[in-house]
Amino acid sequence: MVQPTDLPRNDTGIATVLGILKQQFPDRLHTGQSLRDQHGHTTTWLRTQAPDAVLFPRSTQEVSDIIKICAAHKVPVIPYGTGTSLEGQVNAPAGGICLDLTEMNQILSVNAEDLDCTVEPGVTREQLNTYLRDQGLFFPIDPGANASLGGMAATRASGTNAVRYGTMKDNVLAIEAVMPDGEIIKTAQRARKSSAGYDLTRLLVGAEGTLGLITKLTLRLHGIPEQISAARCSFPTVEAACETVMAVIQFGIPVARIELLDALTVKAVNAYSKLDLPETPLLLIEFHGSKAGVREQAENFGAIAQDNGSNGYTSTTSTEERNKLWQARHDAYWAQQALRPGAKGIATDVCVPISRLAECVSAASNKVRELGLIAPIVGHAGDGNFHAALMVDMDDPKEIETAEFFVGWLNDLAISMDGTCTGEHGIGQGKKPYLLKELGPAATIMRKIKTALDPDNIMNPGKIF
Amino acid sequence: MVQPTDLPRNDTGIATVLGILKQQFPDRLHTGQSLRDQHGHTTTWLRTQAPDAVLFPRSTQEVSDIIKICAAHKVPVIPYGTGTSLEGQVNAPAGGICLDLTEMNQILSVNAEDLDCTVEPGVTREQLNTYLRDQGLFFPIDPGANASLGGMAATRASGTNAVRYGTMKDNVLAIEAVMPDGEIIKTAQRARKSSAGYDLTRLLVGAEGTLGLITKLTLRLHGIPEQISAARCSFPTVEAACETVMAVIQFGIPVARIELLDALTVKAVNAYSKLDLPETPLLLIEFHGSKAGVREQAENFGAIAQDNGSNGYTSTTSTEERNKLWQARHDAYWAQQALRPGAKGIATDVCVPISRLAECVSAASNKVRELGLIAPIVGHAGDGNFHAALMVDMDDPKEIETAEFFVGWLNDLAISMDGTCTGEHGIGQGKKPYLLKELGPAATIMRKIKTALDPDNIMNPGKIF
Repeated sequence: MVQPTDLPRNDTGIATVLGILKQQFPDRLHTGQSLRDQHGHTTTWLRTQAPDAVLFPRSTQEVSDIIKICAAHKVPVIPYGTGTSLEGQVNAPAGGICLDLTEMNQILSVNAEDLDCTVEPGVTREQLNTYLRDQGLFFPIDPGANASLGGMAATRASGTNAVRYGTMKDNVLAIEAVMPDGEIIKTAQRARKSSAGYDLTRLLVGAEGTLGLITKLTLRLHGIPEQISAARCSFPTVEAACETVMAVIQFGIPVARIELLDALTVKAVNAYSKLDLPETPLLLIEFHGSKAGVREQAENFGAIAQDNGSNGYTSTTSTEERNKLWQARHDAYWAQQALRPGAKGIATDVCVPISRLAECVSAASNKVRELGLIAPIVGHAGDGNFHAALMVDMDDPKEIETAEFFVGWLNDLAISMDGTCTGEHGIGQGKKPYLLKELGPAATIMRKIKTALDPDNIMNPGKIF
Repeated sequence: MVQPTDLPRNDTGIATVLGILKQQFPDRLHTGQSLRDQHGHTTTWLRTQAPDAVLFPRSTQEVSDIIKICAAHKVPVIPYGTGTSLEGQVNAPAGGICLDLTEMNQILSVNAEDLDCTVEPGVTREQLNTYLRDQGLFFPIDPGANASLGGMAATRASGTNAVRYGTMKDNVLAIEAVMPDGEIIKTAQRARKSSAGYDLTRLLVGAEGTLGLITKLTLRLHGIPEQISAARCSFPTVEAACETVMAVIQFGIPVARIELLDALTVKAVNAYSKLDLPETPLLLIEFHGSKAGVREQAENFGAIAQDNGSNGYTSTTSTEERNKLWQARHDAYWAQQALRPGAKGIATDVCVPISRLAECVSAASNKVRELGLIAPIVGHAGDGNFHAALMVDMDDPKEIETAEFFVGWLNDLAISMDGTCTGEHGIGQGKKPYLLKELGPAATIMRKIKTALDPDNIMNPGKIF
């Protein structure tokens, strides 16, 4: 795979900034190699490009002060949440200062009456949900990893619940951010809607830290549903599973989750978790609502699944049974890894209109087989988003080349189907050429915005563009 | 009220552009005074600032050609849909060319399987919904007027259904736009979600035509609910009505509409439509869902309303009865006007967190009384958004001054409650000072984006900033 290149370094500026910051934050500026490496580490195949230092700010004002110093000397600033992004978003290709937001992890307020809360960017989604549970509230976005909410906003994360609750773009009401000149802005008030000027909230959500650093988020919350039920349903083919998903969405069944596992993933999960699921495509579904509503959803779903030739449909409202039904999904990541110990996982993340999902998944599976690769598939089927997780022997240049070909081929296929090369992981370093293929002239407009707000390109340089 | 000022005109450029366009579009460039006046006409109190000409383009390419000509001579371009915006969005304070998009009114495709469609900007919401009905689909955003979808996107419109279906920001998947240099961009593909770079879709939604002209929209559609029921419920006080709304939202009852009418509006409607509703605050509600789901929603709502002291709750699933129940809302605009024949309506549009709605509505009513004004209130209560419609004698300078004081006072109050000066009408010309009060430094960022994308300020100048 093409590894990220280093960008020109401003060594003089970096040395000056390190000197200033060392004085101001003697205990919180770290320049040890292992901590730096850890902060450039990405979950996938991209090589580490470590920052020159890692600093743990504790307040918006500190972030502003630090960014002003970096701006004065044109030194890169790389925001860091939990390091679970997948496209090299935390790498430092031109060096610079990594701001690790772990210590900005306060839940500042919860407005139960308004179903919103305001948090610092280092708060993780599990931390927030644990805090909210007693109040009968939850924050629905679940990208899998226990990511920080600032990072989730920055990459426009989504995950399993998005089919019902939307993505981060739908669940961030307002952002406080420090801009590239150190100025602090608030993008919106706490009202549920507004037409007051440009939507800077949505501009910062998904900007991957390239326009500013998020220091506070006001998030929409939801009531914990009265009833949650889960279901599992096997299908003879991927097409039958996808047809079911399409019908479910069309009929307006408000599924909270509807996840697709291909036969290879099911096989992997059987082996890893000692289950005995039919080794055919599987849908895992979750229903949220009132007792009667959930029952109705589950019945309607069952009827649609049967019409589409499902073999075996199990549903339950018991928490224990629910966890068992969903075990296949929870273990999928590790089960996939276990398919080929020692291999490196390379995530793909295409998202297509649902009507093209079956075709896209089948084509991907066939191509994987044809190329002799190993790539089990898991998908957020209700959104048309799926991940073919390539398990690659990184010591085999030929296989790496083949995997690279596949990634490009799949992205091109999705784009040709009016889909996107990234449903939820972002562009980062890994997908830059595909952004251009996908949106062309729009990418020029994005770059103009970047240049206008960050003329010296200090905010997370080398990402998106 | 402070009327919009004229901006410096580029008379030479305008004359040149008119000459070129007259040659290229001899039958579609109009310079007659009455058509020009009509295109600067706004629904409320702002005086007309007519463009120099009105042109009816028929394709994206024509829009691009025209904007390139205007860009070359630094001449303003003002997009026009149906002219139903309320804050002077279609005025031409520096003159220029109004592009009336009436003839770009094709529904280009409907993808029933994906629940989306692609339309030209001049398609109105009623036109679209009539077209979709046979396929069991609808587009939910309903700002009242039969506005064009391009205009609704440009002002980030919402209206009665937003509590359930969101606003234009949530229902536009992708935009094709002509940028200020005439370049054509597409902001996104047709996938339901994407993390591919900056969210230019959401940047153009709500930009009021100041960053580019929308030439195509891909919209999310919804299935027409199996069952729709409506309800009407009177309350002794505005507080009791608002408490009910808050509880409904908190309990997660997925109301499709929940509208508040204050006692004065109910009185006006009684007089106008010969109804005999109790002249106390009224909630009008609509439920969408399955038969059982709608029944459950209506029952739960009724219980909450009763807990909050409602006197009289009527609900029905019959279409005829439903229309009768909602008649009060449908007639509210004209009924309000009839309260004071000859007066000019001045719309306000604050939106606050729901927990502050009762307080904000009560304070507004009290202040109206204290000032001796007439201002019935209608609100999209589920969003915390309401309109106090001032009925002002525009020949009475003292009353105009008082009305102006009230508008400022109400906007300041909403902002102090963490709300916004505009829930759905946009900034236009009328709310520019309040945008600064509301978001301060963020407005500077907006201006930087505007300058980067439209350095000569030709796209709808004098709006937002």
